[in-house]
Amino acid sequence: MPEISEADKHYNLWALLHQVSDIIFSARETELLQHGIPGMQAEVLFVIKAIGKDVTPAQISRLIFRRPHSVSGILNRMEKAGLVKKTKDLHRKNLVRVTITAKGEQAYKQALKRKSVQRIMSALSEGEQQKLKSLLETLRNKGLKELGMDSKKVPFPKFM
Amino acid sequence: MPEISEADKHYNLWALLHQVSDIIFSARETELLQHGIPGMQAEVLFVIKAIGKDVTPAQISRLIFRRPHSVSGILNRMEKAGLVKKTKDLHRKNLVRVTITAKGEQAYKQALKRKSVQRIMSALSEGEQQKLKSLLETLRNKGLKELGMDSKKVPFPKFM
Repeated sequence: MPEISEADKHYNLWALLHQVSDIIFSARETELLQHGIPGMQAEVLFVIKAIGKDVTPAQISRLIFRRPHSVSGILNRMEKAGLVKKTKDLHRKNLVRVTITAKGEQAYKQALKRKSVQRIMSALSEGEQQKLKSLLETLRNKGLKELGMDSKKVPFPKFM
Repeated sequence: MPEISEADKHYNLWALLHQVSDIIFSARETELLQHGIPGMQAEVLFVIKAIGKDVTPAQISRLIFRRPHSVSGILNRMEKAGLVKKTKDLHRKNLVRVTITAKGEQAYKQALKRKSVQRIMSALSEGEQQKLKSLLETLRNKGLKELGMDSKKVPFPKFM
């Protein structure tokens, strides 16, 4: 059963990757919640900042790999919390634009304080970080291909 | 500003890790949705299987690093879809037990067909996979420590 065992190995590696991502996300969220910002909302703030202007929910959805209805739910909660404002496009009434409010800018600045991520990443040496980056980039390219997306057109998440 | 630039580097690496995890999750979800199973529900099925018996929502919450109320929402949707059944513990009425239904077992078997993950992971050589595993384990240990958890007590996700 060599084929099954290889599949299991691949799967376990993915499960580990996913778990580590969840762990760091969770550490970061614990830190952010001290400022009252859920992790996913912080992520959306970073994405809005990265896109710059004329931000639409569809763009956010593509950049955080969440389905439109999930993003819509997150944006509604963020609007309720006063972090973003949704406005209709002047020319295309069915198009929604998302902007960050003054309160959202404050939250963004708090979210930039990301000590937990630094503490965790410092567990790797400079060289190990480089190696990890290169391995992840390979998986990123292959994964985006699997999704039928052009990796050159998907922004590198260096803004987040 | 060398300190800021190191912090940015750490953060970018985390953002990349998170994005890769999202991309593979998304590829897997696309595959699973052909069988009508949302990715997060598949993950919960795997976790229930891994725990074995007497599964509680709190245990699931700890293993997938999601807050109890998120898990509760997922379990409600899964019960509605007929994948799991929630029953009250005979001795401690306020304790809920989660079991997989026959339909859930079917869905679990479908979810085991995980070709997308294999295709993506095959982008790395055997040696690279080993290296990635070791780097991720370092981050896992440090991340769990950051969360105040004992990495030896958190199950390795080799079951997922």
